[in-house]
Amino acid sequence: MKKLKINLQKHLELSETDWQKFKERINMKAINAGTQLVNEGQIATHLYFIDIGLLRVYHLEDGKEVNTYFACDGQFISCYASFVAQTPSFEYLEAIEDSMVFAISYENLSQLYSESSGFERIGRILAEKNYLCLIDRFYSMQTKTATGKYLDFIENHEKKIVQRVPQYQIASFLGIAPESLSRVRKHLLTS
Amino acid sequence: MKKLKINLQKHLELSETDWQKFKERINMKAINAGTQLVNEGQIATHLYFIDIGLLRVYHLEDGKEVNTYFACDGQFISCYASFVAQTPSFEYLEAIEDSMVFAISYENLSQLYSESSGFERIGRILAEKNYLCLIDRFYSMQTKTATGKYLDFIENHEKKIVQRVPQYQIASFLGIAPESLSRVRKHLLTS
Repeated sequence: MKKLKINLQKHLELSETDWQKFKERINMKAINAGTQLVNEGQIATHLYFIDIGLLRVYHLEDGKEVNTYFACDGQFISCYASFVAQTPSFEYLEAIEDSMVFAISYENLSQLYSESSGFERIGRILAEKNYLCLIDRFYSMQTKTATGKYLDFIENHEKKIVQRVPQYQIASFLGIAPESLSRVRKHLLTS
Repeated sequence: MKKLKINLQKHLELSETDWQKFKERINMKAINAGTQLVNEGQIATHLYFIDIGLLRVYHLEDGKEVNTYFACDGQFISCYASFVAQTPSFEYLEAIEDSMVFAISYENLSQLYSESSGFERIGRILAEKNYLCLIDRFYSMQTKTATGKYLDFIENHEKKIVQRVPQYQIASFLGIAPESLSRVRKHLLTS
């Protein structure tokens, strides 16, 4: 739970009382690789903090999976639009590797928001980060070459994600063919 | 200033002290139609609350304007990514009609966040709404027909925006040709 406490403390002076309140409202969960935490049409009931692991968010376009978000150790993840609006998700949330997460329900998080401005702050910063992440991805996809997109990806993601997410999954995130990504990587490695 | 107070009170029990604090930190500004409040490459220093008016956010793609956000009376607007991250904007913020806005600077808003959990809450809700707005637009653009996109647009925007934003600007928001929008509207009006 140390990583989670450190992450929260980045954004607020976490009093012992607040930390206790928070701890009482989260559940630790071990998830096997391949587990779907949210399916299309379900409401995302929980926000997850990854203690150790690797997860992805994707949706289907003409039956094909399109990845839109990866997260690993020390990061939050959910089908965020569904979680925030409490409406059915058009996205899926899946564990890429065996993972250990802390889960907090929408109700419990809402309660924390009401009880402490520190948690409101974390919620705001999380929402702002998610906004920036989304707009960066779309902007990069609209304006950059395959090489530019991959360089943006490396710059904006943790090493673990860059190294351990399968290449075809990264290609799907970048909106390029796996063969193009392979060419881009080969070119970058030899240039 | 009544609209602004009502808008804030939607999200928090606004004490008289908080309202006073807020009032001291905002400036009223009259803006002529066509005024650029933010240009590409500038940092968006202010968040605007529209008392009366109509504004848009757009960026350039191959030299062509692409609209991504409209707001009117009672709504907030900024080049939000630039404002939140305090980094140079890739977007422009422009008044479509003569407008009257209240402007709050990034520094003043940050101070309000520190002073009151109510303002943190407003910041969180604003960030979450912007996230939902962005993802809805991209999802609609990727998956819907021209008619579906326009129906989504009508559903998600204030009447004033639907009625007063020029048709070619709406077409640019929807990523369709003005002629297609014209056909869609004609079809909907006669069906």
